[in-house]
Amino acid sequence: MKILVVGSVAYDSVETPEGKRDAQLGGSASYFSVSASYFTEVGMVGVIGKDFQESDLRMYESHGIDISGLERADGETFRWAGDYLKDINTAVTHETQLNVFAKFSPSLSDAHKAAPYLFLANIDPTLQLKVLGDMSSRPKIVACDTMNLWIDISRSALTELIGKVDILTINEGEARQFTDQHHLPTAAGRLLKSGPSTVVIKRGEYGAALFNESFNFAAPAYPLASVVDPTGAGDSFAGGFMGCIAATGDASEEGLRRAAIVGSTMASFAVEAFGLDRISNLTGAEIEQRYQAFVDLTRFQTLAGNNGLPLLEK
Amino acid sequence: MKILVVGSVAYDSVETPEGKRDAQLGGSASYFSVSASYFTEVGMVGVIGKDFQESDLRMYESHGIDISGLERADGETFRWAGDYLKDINTAVTHETQLNVFAKFSPSLSDAHKAAPYLFLANIDPTLQLKVLGDMSSRPKIVACDTMNLWIDISRSALTELIGKVDILTINEGEARQFTDQHHLPTAAGRLLKSGPSTVVIKRGEYGAALFNESFNFAAPAYPLASVVDPTGAGDSFAGGFMGCIAATGDASEEGLRRAAIVGSTMASFAVEAFGLDRISNLTGAEIEQRYQAFVDLTRFQTLAGNNGLPLLEK
Repeated sequence: MKILVVGSVAYDSVETPEGKRDAQLGGSASYFSVSASYFTEVGMVGVIGKDFQESDLRMYESHGIDISGLERADGETFRWAGDYLKDINTAVTHETQLNVFAKFSPSLSDAHKAAPYLFLANIDPTLQLKVLGDMSSRPKIVACDTMNLWIDISRSALTELIGKVDILTINEGEARQFTDQHHLPTAAGRLLKSGPSTVVIKRGEYGAALFNESFNFAAPAYPLASVVDPTGAGDSFAGGFMGCIAATGDASEEGLRRAAIVGSTMASFAVEAFGLDRISNLTGAEIEQRYQAFVDLTRFQTLAGNNGLPLLEK
Repeated sequence: MKILVVGSVAYDSVETPEGKRDAQLGGSASYFSVSASYFTEVGMVGVIGKDFQESDLRMYESHGIDISGLERADGETFRWAGDYLKDINTAVTHETQLNVFAKFSPSLSDAHKAAPYLFLANIDPTLQLKVLGDMSSRPKIVACDTMNLWIDISRSALTELIGKVDILTINEGEARQFTDQHHLPTAAGRLLKSGPSTVVIKRGEYGAALFNESFNFAAPAYPLASVVDPTGAGDSFAGGFMGCIAATGDASEEGLRRAAIVGSTMASFAVEAFGLDRISNLTGAEIEQRYQAFVDLTRFQTLAGNNGLPLLEK
């Protein structure tokens, strides 16, 4: 197993301008794992309830995902309900039923503990710290995500966690909230000083901005004909991003840049349909075509050769 | 004269999180002209009052800008006051004094009428239409900008104008307002159908998105250490964009992509200081360095050669 992900597995009820779905498979670990599975071997650690569908387990397995870390507990699977009717970039939560997630304490097998890449998806930072502490040796790369709730109620554990990771993925609004800095490059600079060597700011329909100690990189969002369901876009980004890094072992500047575009590619698929409908049914050719579409979306002439700018003498 | 610009010349009183300035030189024609002047010969058409400073006229002239179309009328120069304290992307207007601008009717000399490139900056669309109609022959490229006010009170003239231009530059919110479409690619598609072959959506700190009949292009904003004054960013973008096209005569796909990055480059300078302080004091080397910074900000590996994605067989 190359990447271990610890996060939520959920049934989501979602309404968007494009329609409505009840109890579709979701959760950060689901989106991350399916997205990363196109690139490398993924192991999921999470908890599901008695109501969890066999067909959903088989979907994970069909993607080669190791679900031995998926604990089945008494009770119902975590459920979330929300809508994106007012703003496609921001979910309005209607209801959160933690269910089996309320008492979840991740427990890792020896194989899990030896994973060289670790993604701590958005869960209580005390659990993220526990998982990191349980690893048999420090993974090559540890990345984490978080959310506004933990900034509000668990800031000290979150600060400790951020101090221990290599890569932080965080929403734009949460980066501002955590640092109390409105100007994004300033907020990113504060986050870089607090631990990670790379901070990926997720900006919804505006793409992602990668801030590293030695370079910045801007990845646009793909201008899709329609955004059907933004749920899971960030975790799908993280799955492509970390999956690419784990598959190649390349976390150099070039590797991080490429991984960010792979992440944006996977996020663009995730939002094209409800839940995991699109991202769980991709071909390698489709992924490469979409990556190429990002090349086409962003390419322009460099200053090399005779392409200097047409400047007047002043 | 390569480019003619018709627009406002103003004294702006501005407050931002970085400070406050009273009655600084501004206006769409000022930002556009100074920005474009680094690339090509610009002529300004606009109106100023008796209070207009000689030193400001000399600043235009020092940039080689033809100010023969700057009419000096009885009364005071157009004045605007506003702040960006709540949201750096959106000005809150405190006061607008049209002054000499209230009765402004652009009058073009023969040299103005023969300009091969025309930028109709944000003024009443009936005046924009008049200028376009006064040209001795259809310019090679006509671009225009607008604002929410004209969408509200002069929609039919604006619709007629948009039907006649090659390039429309418009803010994201205004594109949504004009088309009544929230999803930006859909809004841009509607705008393309209404006339222009290229629509540039200005997204403030998120950069610009260029939609053309045959391609899309995403230009990020440069992650500056601080944004001092966003006034004039859009017109500075337009000045660099149109200046680059006029200087080279290249409005091909490659030319438009490069011009959008030149526009973003000039906008990034404009916001680094109050008013025209920074953009009126640039060297060619600084412009090329910033353009190169955009190359560095956006470059990533293509799929060419051995750089295919690390996809698993599925």
